[in-house]
Amino acid sequence: MSERFDTVSFLSDYGTADEFVGVVKGVIRDLARHVTVIDLTHEVPVHDVRAGSLTLARCIQYVPAGVVLAVVDPGVGTERRAVAVEVAGGAGVLVGPDNGLLAPAVAMAGGVGRCVALTDDQFHLAAPGRTFAGRDVFAPVAAHLCNGVDLLELGETVDPLGLLPGLVPLSREEGDTVVGEVLWVDRFGNAQLNVGPDEVAGWGERVRLRLGDEVRAATVADTYAGIGSGIGLVVDSYGLLSVALDRRSAARELDLAAGDPVVLSPLTDPQELGSTTAVQLRPRS
Amino acid sequence: MSERFDTVSFLSDYGTADEFVGVVKGVIRDLARHVTVIDLTHEVPVHDVRAGSLTLARCIQYVPAGVVLAVVDPGVGTERRAVAVEVAGGAGVLVGPDNGLLAPAVAMAGGVGRCVALTDDQFHLAAPGRTFAGRDVFAPVAAHLCNGVDLLELGETVDPLGLLPGLVPLSREEGDTVVGEVLWVDRFGNAQLNVGPDEVAGWGERVRLRLGDEVRAATVADTYAGIGSGIGLVVDSYGLLSVALDRRSAARELDLAAGDPVVLSPLTDPQELGSTTAVQLRPRS
Amino acid sequence: MSERFDTVSFLSDYGTADEFVGVVKGVIRDLARHVTVIDLTHEVPVHDVRAGSLTLARCIQYVPAGVVLAVVDPGVGTERRAVAVEVAGGAGVLVGPDNGLLAPAVAMAGGVGRCVALTDDQFHLAAPGRTFAGRDVFAPVAAHLCNGVDLLELGETVDPLGLLPGLVPLSREEGDTVVGEVLWVDRFGNAQLNVGPDEVAGWGERVRLRLGDEVRAATVADTYAGIGSGIGLVVDSYGLLSVALDRRSAARELDLAAGDPVVLSPLTDPQELGSTTAVQLRPRS
Repeated sequence: MSERFDTVSFLSDYGTADEFVGVVKGVIRDLARHVTVIDLTHEVPVHDVRAGSLTLARCIQYVPAGVVLAVVDPGVGTERRAVAVEVAGGAGVLVGPDNGLLAPAVAMAGGVGRCVALTDDQFHLAAPGRTFAGRDVFAPVAAHLCNGVDLLELGETVDPLGLLPGLVPLSREEGDTVVGEVLWVDRFGNAQLNVGPDEVAGWGERVRLRLGDEVRAATVADTYAGIGSGIGLVVDSYGLLSVALDRRSAARELDLAAGDPVVLSPLTDPQELGSTTAVQLRPRS
Repeated sequence: MSERFDTVSFLSDYGTADEFVGVVKGVIRDLARHVTVIDLTHEVPVHDVRAGSLTLARCIQYVPAGVVLAVVDPGVGTERRAVAVEVAGGAGVLVGPDNGLLAPAVAMAGGVGRCVALTDDQFHLAAPGRTFAGRDVFAPVAAHLCNGVDLLELGETVDPLGLLPGLVPLSREEGDTVVGEVLWVDRFGNAQLNVGPDEVAGWGERVRLRLGDEVRAATVADTYAGIGSGIGLVVDSYGLLSVALDRRSAARELDLAAGDPVVLSPLTDPQELGSTTAVQLRPRS
Repeated sequence: MSERFDTVSFLSDYGTADEFVGVVKGVIRDLARHVTVIDLTHEVPVHDVRAGSLTLARCIQYVPAGVVLAVVDPGVGTERRAVAVEVAGGAGVLVGPDNGLLAPAVAMAGGVGRCVALTDDQFHLAAPGRTFAGRDVFAPVAAHLCNGVDLLELGETVDPLGLLPGLVPLSREEGDTVVGEVLWVDRFGNAQLNVGPDEVAGWGERVRLRLGDEVRAATVADTYAGIGSGIGLVVDSYGLLSVALDRRSAARELDLAAGDPVVLSPLTDPQELGSTTAVQLRPRS
């Protein structure tokens, strides 16, 4: 058996205050000394499969060839399946629970190749409880894959059509408006929308945003610094529109969170929303 | 001199907001290029030797062969000793302060082999102050051990009986009750007790819990999902009983923290505590 | 082309809740499989170039030979330059924005050697937006440097005198007092000053501190434990004086934050500020 992969990219909702992440890495190193683990993030909100799946989808094109280990697993220990899914002609294998967490990333990577349920426990650790599949199932499976164990040895083949789909919200057009929502608020307070720049093409430099009960004008800009003192719509690093302020947090000042609806429409009368749109800091409701 | 270890597993109360962890890793890499460092956690509460020792004890059986570097060190720079302790016939060496931090992990690993105080400063870094032993003493010693320096070269031999013992609280039986306490609350709000499933064997599926002034019924379950809407007692991933709720935080809803007492007793009359035990969310006092 | 460096030391204000750090590491690994990345810290306060530059300066002498990747970059995507700066005769290369972030570390490392602006985009990633230079510019450049690409291939040579200087505040003498400020508050609540022990040499064991409107006596001590129950002035691990309490947070109890002024003077009459200086816990204003 020859080593097949040298990298495991690891995402979870484990946080880093406990030893969970360290223990998973210890198990991988014990079984596959040659492997480097890259932490994508471990701060996915607890049990938030949707947020984890979106994060993984954003990462996937930048993840090196190898295994992707993803664990956001509120149903750990139940009948929910544990799976391993090949993508990109076998250049990558995603390992995790079959609860929708992996699905958007798999789609971004070109779709499912071979796929198995992790039913053969000779590739797992014996454990006193059933609550830490990251350590007892997913980590050893990731290590064995890196060591060259073939996917089909890990358990029963699964019909890719039977995998639980992801929950990526799509924007929709309604007349001349685009109804979207906030996918993600990053550390800097930028609010990524599920709306691409093509959906507002031809609308000009200023766009009307409905955020909850308020209507605001936003300036389309290439960079945060190009926004000026008002609200910006910037093409972010993933190619989606992001509601942003220059060097301040749009999420805090505009009270935006993941899942919030945002409606975009052309701003035909430039006077309509005033000539300035400087944002006033106001308390969160 | 030939390389002896290729892994340092690292636990501390340094946090990651400062550069302490990065600097320790820099020192190790500078001295021992072949070594991989695994972070167990750096979020042990500041100066909390007990919490650090319990975390290290939970980790120890999953830590790869090599050096374990553990630093929770409120007495840094004083006469408290710095030590290196061999375990498992030399497969592992624990390096850290002799303040009880290492003791429970050493016991879990089968007890003390050779042991030295880190008195030979040729294996330390020269430093302007005496406040960062992680960088100036423990990191270089860990690196030198990985490079093959023998334990006995690092300083004076210490009588293992003279090492400061750890502070692991034991449960006790009082009549038909078991008096335990919360060892650890994890990110998900599960409250691990110092009570094993054998201590409640034969009590049936429902157990009476006294938590402070309240008495509650708990359901013994294999998985969080098996708890239902009430309180669960789940055998956790370390083989201890854990007070848990399904997909919610038991610690928050039941107001539990490390060190809190928990008294378990058989629930002989199933009607005694009502037929349902659904938890109401209530504010922390 | 032969591999030149095997280590990238990485500092940023990205935090770890998002996937930014993981994606940067994925890009580096994809291009330079042999490289190990050491995280210095990613918790520099958002957009705080001064705090980042001070952290990097504290780290620099402990960073292994190789590339230092530093990103605190509020002007990302604008005309601010991206640069790579050789130090220590080419043993190290610092890569980051030319906004003062790198300057104090470069000075600590002995000053600028060769220096280029990162203008050749054949060494960058193509990207849909201009907001994530860490991923699209700095990470691939760091990887290419590790792979042996010469600095001068990366872009136009820059006059080192044209680099933006850092903003390290200097202490000053006024009569028999030293006017300093807090550079950094660490996790333990120690408040590092921009004042060295030589500046208070000959003042004896007790020093008068003016902190805002209050005057307090501080005891010069070698270790935190040597402070006793009052306020200490300890030579910290970087050789600067730090306002500290034993096993408690000086920053919290004395209400100190980075940038706060601290005035030191000799305490000639030991009775002046009372015989005890025990600190009372009081709420932050």
